[in-house]
Amino acid sequence: MTLKLGVIGTGAIGQEHIRRCSKVLQGAKVVAVSDINTESAKGIVSRLGLEAEVFANGHEVIASSAVDALIVTSWDPTHEEFTLAAIAAGKPVFCEKPLALSAEGCRRIVDAEIAYGKRLVQVGFMRPYDAGYRALKKVIVDDEIGEPLMLHCAHRNPTVPENYTTDMAITNTLIHELDVLRWLTEDDYKTVQVVFPRSTKKTHARLRDPQVVLFETQKGIRIDVEIFVNCAYGYDIQCEVIGETGIAKLPEPASVQMRKDAKLATTILTDWKDRFIDAYDVELQAFINDATAGELQGPSAWDGYAASVAADACLKAQESGAIEAVELPPRPAFYNR
Amino acid sequence: MTLKLGVIGTGAIGQEHIRRCSKVLQGAKVVAVSDINTESAKGIVSRLGLEAEVFANGHEVIASSAVDALIVTSWDPTHEEFTLAAIAAGKPVFCEKPLALSAEGCRRIVDAEIAYGKRLVQVGFMRPYDAGYRALKKVIVDDEIGEPLMLHCAHRNPTVPENYTTDMAITNTLIHELDVLRWLTEDDYKTVQVVFPRSTKKTHARLRDPQVVLFETQKGIRIDVEIFVNCAYGYDIQCEVIGETGIAKLPEPASVQMRKDAKLATTILTDWKDRFIDAYDVELQAFINDATAGELQGPSAWDGYAASVAADACLKAQESGAIEAVELPPRPAFYNR
Amino acid sequence: MTLKLGVIGTGAIGQEHIRRCSKVLQGAKVVAVSDINTESAKGIVSRLGLEAEVFANGHEVIASSAVDALIVTSWDPTHEEFTLAAIAAGKPVFCEKPLALSAEGCRRIVDAEIAYGKRLVQVGFMRPYDAGYRALKKVIVDDEIGEPLMLHCAHRNPTVPENYTTDMAITNTLIHELDVLRWLTEDDYKTVQVVFPRSTKKTHARLRDPQVVLFETQKGIRIDVEIFVNCAYGYDIQCEVIGETGIAKLPEPASVQMRKDAKLATTILTDWKDRFIDAYDVELQAFINDATAGELQGPSAWDGYAASVAADACLKAQESGAIEAVELPPRPAFYNR
Amino acid sequence: MTLKLGVIGTGAIGQEHIRRCSKVLQGAKVVAVSDINTESAKGIVSRLGLEAEVFANGHEVIASSAVDALIVTSWDPTHEEFTLAAIAAGKPVFCEKPLALSAEGCRRIVDAEIAYGKRLVQVGFMRPYDAGYRALKKVIVDDEIGEPLMLHCAHRNPTVPENYTTDMAITNTLIHELDVLRWLTEDDYKTVQVVFPRSTKKTHARLRDPQVVLFETQKGIRIDVEIFVNCAYGYDIQCEVIGETGIAKLPEPASVQMRKDAKLATTILTDWKDRFIDAYDVELQAFINDATAGELQGPSAWDGYAASVAADACLKAQESGAIEAVELPPRPAFYNR
Repeated sequence: MTLKLGVIGTGAIGQEHIRRCSKVLQGAKVVAVSDINTESAKGIVSRLGLEAEVFANGHEVIASSAVDALIVTSWDPTHEEFTLAAIAAGKPVFCEKPLALSAEGCRRIVDAEIAYGKRLVQVGFMRPYDAGYRALKKVIVDDEIGEPLMLHCAHRNPTVPENYTTDMAITNTLIHELDVLRWLTEDDYKTVQVVFPRSTKKTHARLRDPQVVLFETQKGIRIDVEIFVNCAYGYDIQCEVIGETGIAKLPEPASVQMRKDAKLATTILTDWKDRFIDAYDVELQAFINDATAGELQGPSAWDGYAASVAADACLKAQESGAIEAVELPPRPAFYNR
Repeated sequence: MTLKLGVIGTGAIGQEHIRRCSKVLQGAKVVAVSDINTESAKGIVSRLGLEAEVFANGHEVIASSAVDALIVTSWDPTHEEFTLAAIAAGKPVFCEKPLALSAEGCRRIVDAEIAYGKRLVQVGFMRPYDAGYRALKKVIVDDEIGEPLMLHCAHRNPTVPENYTTDMAITNTLIHELDVLRWLTEDDYKTVQVVFPRSTKKTHARLRDPQVVLFETQKGIRIDVEIFVNCAYGYDIQCEVIGETGIAKLPEPASVQMRKDAKLATTILTDWKDRFIDAYDVELQAFINDATAGELQGPSAWDGYAASVAADACLKAQESGAIEAVELPPRPAFYNR
Repeated sequence: MTLKLGVIGTGAIGQEHIRRCSKVLQGAKVVAVSDINTESAKGIVSRLGLEAEVFANGHEVIASSAVDALIVTSWDPTHEEFTLAAIAAGKPVFCEKPLALSAEGCRRIVDAEIAYGKRLVQVGFMRPYDAGYRALKKVIVDDEIGEPLMLHCAHRNPTVPENYTTDMAITNTLIHELDVLRWLTEDDYKTVQVVFPRSTKKTHARLRDPQVVLFETQKGIRIDVEIFVNCAYGYDIQCEVIGETGIAKLPEPASVQMRKDAKLATTILTDWKDRFIDAYDVELQAFINDATAGELQGPSAWDGYAASVAADACLKAQESGAIEAVELPPRPAFYNR
Repeated sequence: MTLKLGVIGTGAIGQEHIRRCSKVLQGAKVVAVSDINTESAKGIVSRLGLEAEVFANGHEVIASSAVDALIVTSWDPTHEEFTLAAIAAGKPVFCEKPLALSAEGCRRIVDAEIAYGKRLVQVGFMRPYDAGYRALKKVIVDDEIGEPLMLHCAHRNPTVPENYTTDMAITNTLIHELDVLRWLTEDDYKTVQVVFPRSTKKTHARLRDPQVVLFETQKGIRIDVEIFVNCAYGYDIQCEVIGETGIAKLPEPASVQMRKDAKLATTILTDWKDRFIDAYDVELQAFINDATAGELQGPSAWDGYAASVAADACLKAQESGAIEAVELPPRPAFYNR
């Protein structure tokens, strides 16, 4: 049985997902697309030679009787609207992050999903599908290092565009850790604090870079995440879990080991797209399989909401310099893992 | 367009390939299967819920008008027969190794393919599709280490069954290096010598283990391959290329780094199946894509023949203890890379 | 010319230093020793077959005309008294840490030394003499990673005795980082904060373990030091310097690399004594050479004072949970590097 | 008690050893020196401010009643003569390699020492004193990897002078492996074969580079040593021991780990002098201690002879291309380990 997909928004990532579902993954078929720029939607359909109808807007895609499930890759401000519409239509929806522009918006989606009575939303957090993070979590779950006590993490980019500002270190960069670290520790954030080292000369007035974000979790785990988006040397994601009996570290990507020019070296990636490229495939295949099976299991609307609440607390902590509470309500039983 | 596949032989690897083509890869559909044990063929078809016809024997599968291309995963002694029949039928065929039981048999397939006038055969050598070997070859092709002068390689298994004998170290184990090192160096073997260290206590009378196989190539590259199939500690494939300006080493599989019990350690695989698991997918997807495009590009009948000729020379060298010539005729223009 | 040494205190470390100066290092001779337990002093002299006079107390050793320089390895509460006496006698003195029991005590030594007008005191901080830390500092000084922005450090012991309490994590363990990180960054601490993850089950009521100590320096460098003295897996010292253009990490001690039991592993030390064993030799040889040359260059009384002031702030931060100022007065020109 | 040393030959290495014994090591004093160029001898004595008599030739140094033991660092052709004279005088002698210009010459020294009835000779092989090789041997002796079956070794230099020829790869470069691998395996060579890969463009007509030397030992261990003296990238010594249950690899020298320019790298040494610098100190201190104790334990005249016999076989194998026997007579009981 093939899952018939409608894709709303055919920008860069939308086109990537359409290609994936059509040319790489199994069990799905893109049958409907829309974009605010209809020419863009028509373009990708013809370029990939798809048998897919092009609609004038997303709501028609959602309404189409030919469509079993939705992928929302439209302009961020429209994510909430289309996701709510998909829920109203009772159709599974994969929504790229951010699920909504505010925690309140995420909460409305959560409430709508609970009211509907069945999980219909998967948020586009891909790291829980990365083989490295999965191996790291297995070490924890298998109790190879005892109870986790601390996490030391880093999220480094070689450089960022001129329009990247201090707050975006939270909303565009840390957002991935905000989700994956909850998943990794099966825990929630209790407080957050942000400290600013002196900035690198490679940044500009509106971006304090690097930053260090310090979390305490409900279980008392302490997490430090270094965010350094002008680190110059590469795109480097680090995560080290300190347990009671040992330490486990996220694998470095496999690389040819070279002996050259008086160095024994492996390569560090420089383009973030290469780092989690396989995870995107796994993530969408999981959505296709789970939607077909009628039971979504990936990152939920609640996870999107929790990340959004944590991000708001981080932004507040950037401003105040104080230790801020992360005010996440109790998880509804509906979302119990 | 979907490639309609006929699969001859539904043993373990046959079933794996059927699953791959049906549940993992894109662009193909298994429409016909056969096995000497018809129940086995029926079983896999029903278990996977395939719309595939079960035939009494492989020749009917080849003859079926519903079949575009073949996958031969039958009993080794039948590989040559079915591959020749596929060529006669003008249908692309993916044949698991060995292509034939003898170099002469491989040669007959080469001659038949040349007579037909178009590449129709891909041999099931998967290592050229492994991401690590591909990265290693890219380093060479990009001239990052200058001209290759030496290769130091190792093929180690933790243990082997009681029925594994000295000659099988060549025909079952080294056979993978015999292919991939030709591909990696774009060179051919000129001579081979086999030396036997004292054997491990973990082996038995009919298996001298470890062995070291020493090659000289046509270009003068020296290659040493350690074969150690009772190495106890893990399944470990090593390949190091010494070039004029640097050295490049096959990546170690990515692994969580642990600090535990006074050791800083990563994991070494113990099951060969895990080592190249992704390469099998890439290999078959390539066959599907190339067969659909009408031009096979993977390991050819000539590559199967060359590996078989080299294996024969290795077996002779095991017996004689002398330096033996690898008598491979010049590559027909038909197979020029 | 040979430096004639008087050693005050012949406990474990005193005996180690006597052995070093007598059997390992060049240019010195132990000519006088004392201990509160005279038998202990006589014992080491006879065991090593030294031509050294045994005195009833340290002041006689200091006063002895045969003595050129002092090594103070007596009971901690007596360090200040003997160091001040050595200064009064105008003799160079190597005093094991702590220089004094309080910052005020250290300050009295600083004032006495300044009053005397010449450096006479070297404190027993050995890490600046460790080859690894020296290599790490060279990377910074050679500007290979640009300006340091952050340091991520860890000080881990496999286990500690029952009588080890929360405050000792600062005074006995962190004290080494408090010195070496000032030396490494050529900077001083501005503020400190201590956070407590949930404690390991391997600790006891009077020891919160692990702890994370967070510093801001005068230059704005952010430093986090994890202290984990029941980490179970080994004695592990980590120091990573994040600079504007790259990251440099303290070398792991050299170790045989093993492939065994499905692990690719190197050994982690478990006994702190093995970690800096060479540094003790280098440290004392430097004292001997500098004292002979008439100009001490190692860790100064000011460095001992600065470490003590920082330790007091850390202890205060442990209590308050707040960000505490490190109130170090301006460095007197006398101590300019 | 201080060992009074006479040093014959004050070239570069002679001066180094004089400095070591005078300024670094314990328990010795250089009291007599000679050199064919007396000014050179006088120069080092005055530069280091030694109380040492300068003699016109080495035999006077040996004869001097002030001299307890000798260090022979003179012109290679004179090593045998001075070593024999030292034995005749019954004085311990540390002789730099080569012990003599021929195996026969080494044998004359062995016979003389046996005739004297007591070990008096230590040959200047320093690798058995290297901490890395000692750690590697400990792994073997502690039976952590079972019985050694194979060794894979490499001796690489970035470049060599124009006058370095094919045979020197054995006599100047491999000579270190010839000694240390006997010591490591506590075994002797049975046969040797040399194979030549195509040469690097960086070499010249009189030097075939690289070379691979293949040994079989008396116990049946197979050893391959790659010699590559124009490898360009660094001075790199590799030694990997494949045992029945695991593999142990010589430690890489400790180095700061850098993340920079898209590389995760450690430094490879380029100057051979830096690689074993500590081993020279340990080697000479051992000679001083053992000579003082009256029982030499370091590399013996027999070890020098064995290395010379093996080198001759290697040279023969370079010429013949055949498998050559290493004709070492049985070890005299006199030299039993």
